[in-house]
Amino acid sequence: MDEDDVSVLVASLLRGDRRALARLITLVENRPRLRDRIMSLIYPYTGNAYVIGITGSPGSGKSTLVDKLTGELRTRGKTVGIIAIDPTSPFTGGAILGDRIRMLSKSTDEGVFIRSMSTRGSLGGLSRAAYDAIALLDAFGKDFVIVETVGTGQAEVDIVDAAYTSIVVVTPDMGDEIQAIKAGILEIADIFVVNKADLENVDATVMALQMMLDLSDKGDWRPPIIKTVATKGVGVKELLDAIERHKAYICETDRIEKMHYKRSKVRILEIVRSKLMDKLIRELENSGELDRIVKCVVEKKMDPYSAADEILRKLDKK
Amino acid sequence: MDEDDVSVLVASLLRGDRRALARLITLVENRPRLRDRIMSLIYPYTGNAYVIGITGSPGSGKSTLVDKLTGELRTRGKTVGIIAIDPTSPFTGGAILGDRIRMLSKSTDEGVFIRSMSTRGSLGGLSRAAYDAIALLDAFGKDFVIVETVGTGQAEVDIVDAAYTSIVVVTPDMGDEIQAIKAGILEIADIFVVNKADLENVDATVMALQMMLDLSDKGDWRPPIIKTVATKGVGVKELLDAIERHKAYICETDRIEKMHYKRSKVRILEIVRSKLMDKLIRELENSGELDRIVKCVVEKKMDPYSAADEILRKLDKK
Repeated sequence: MDEDDVSVLVASLLRGDRRALARLITLVENRPRLRDRIMSLIYPYTGNAYVIGITGSPGSGKSTLVDKLTGELRTRGKTVGIIAIDPTSPFTGGAILGDRIRMLSKSTDEGVFIRSMSTRGSLGGLSRAAYDAIALLDAFGKDFVIVETVGTGQAEVDIVDAAYTSIVVVTPDMGDEIQAIKAGILEIADIFVVNKADLENVDATVMALQMMLDLSDKGDWRPPIIKTVATKGVGVKELLDAIERHKAYICETDRIEKMHYKRSKVRILEIVRSKLMDKLIRELENSGELDRIVKCVVEKKMDPYSAADEILRKLDKK
Repeated sequence: MDEDDVSVLVASLLRGDRRALARLITLVENRPRLRDRIMSLIYPYTGNAYVIGITGSPGSGKSTLVDKLTGELRTRGKTVGIIAIDPTSPFTGGAILGDRIRMLSKSTDEGVFIRSMSTRGSLGGLSRAAYDAIALLDAFGKDFVIVETVGTGQAEVDIVDAAYTSIVVVTPDMGDEIQAIKAGILEIADIFVVNKADLENVDATVMALQMMLDLSDKGDWRPPIIKTVATKGVGVKELLDAIERHKAYICETDRIEKMHYKRSKVRILEIVRSKLMDKLIRELENSGELDRIVKCVVEKKMDPYSAADEILRKLDKK
């Protein structure tokens, strides 16, 4: 696989070849050098997909909801790409849930493309490869890209950097601790979904969210709260209507330009950081300098901050 | 507050002044310049505390378990510092759970010091300030420092970098999705706790963990599985015994030296990265260079990787 093969693959992707798309996602995940080339080739064709983020605690029914939402988007004639972000094993580097077989009823539909990705290599949640996969699905021509993150950690929070509309899924059976965490994801949510709305306590959950929204200042968009029973498809149309309203809201002002600017900046700096540190660490390790300084810290001749300053001083001199 | 005041505070900390400790933790959290000075002053006094990490999903009863474990450590004559890591709000930067009043029955005990911290400023979970707080509690003279992380995200995984013994808490009432995530935290755990062991399915949970352990290769330490009912204090003695066994295991070999080396290296590089990027971003913003490049990316004249490369080329020339 060299740069010429990559150009051929990208041409196939732009013609709508699903296998080329799958292949290219794997390449941006695993081959940094080819990734740079791929991204520069496809970048001019991006910017048309609308990115939706869906997040929530494990067991909240996100995957089922994504499935039903995808069905509704298909009914409305839209094509959909789905990226499911799985927690990464810190040791193997792979996605923990592996290539889980997603129960998506639409998985044989040509208008839908699904991919699981790990959080590997991330400096704070969504991995760089996830952003690249969004760009590939975008260039491929998907109208909507849905990014689904699991867990209550950083990936959940970072979805705001990738998605235009962020949806937070809660359920009526969540305990107190989760309620407390919700106060944080409150600020992320453009739309709340109370899934499993056929359980008890659904009204209490909606009221608790309403109260939190009353106390917070979300500017001129107040996140709607949509009740769903994803397993039965209840409320899914209403959810998509809410997404369309939010889309119209952010597109009718200069809000979407500001989003693009901020996101581009964050992405560029993240790439700079990663490349710069890779290079620096390689140099420091090759010269034996890093080993010497780490040993000083281990022996308490130096604290970590002074050690970092010494490295930075050396860099400045060069 | 200047560097002289800091020296006075550090002297008070070393004499065992709790208010100085609290003050210094606040300073390392909020004042980067003073933090460097504080860390260089206290670093020679660190290295005596044994750091335990406790992690698990929301609602697993971690806080209660930490409470009871602390009680057991106190009974055995040990002093304890507790750092509870809360998820950070990406917008306010503060800890979401705020300065939550922890229900710790030992909170009036002079031998116990408790602090909640946010994940703010973290590049992947535990914040730098959390490491600094561990060092402060260590220099203060605590025999044990317990770091409690909430959530299923990165902070949970990064606890391995801070703790000598990492404990993962699960409960019998966890759903399938959490079971899957557990496969990842399997690799983190030195000890498993099945809390709420008075619920149904406890034996099934223990068996599932045993099976996962049978399939994995943890070297010559097989993580024990301890059943607890934290609310009633059941199993807490057994848990502390297991911790002591693991402590003996890692201390009797050169394992602990290797841990110190690896952790020092990770910390130094994290500080280098953060300081380097702060400086770089400041320079790029002041010169207007960053704004120019971001605009190129927004307008699709350039992709983010090429933009990053342009910045790196400029750096190399300087």
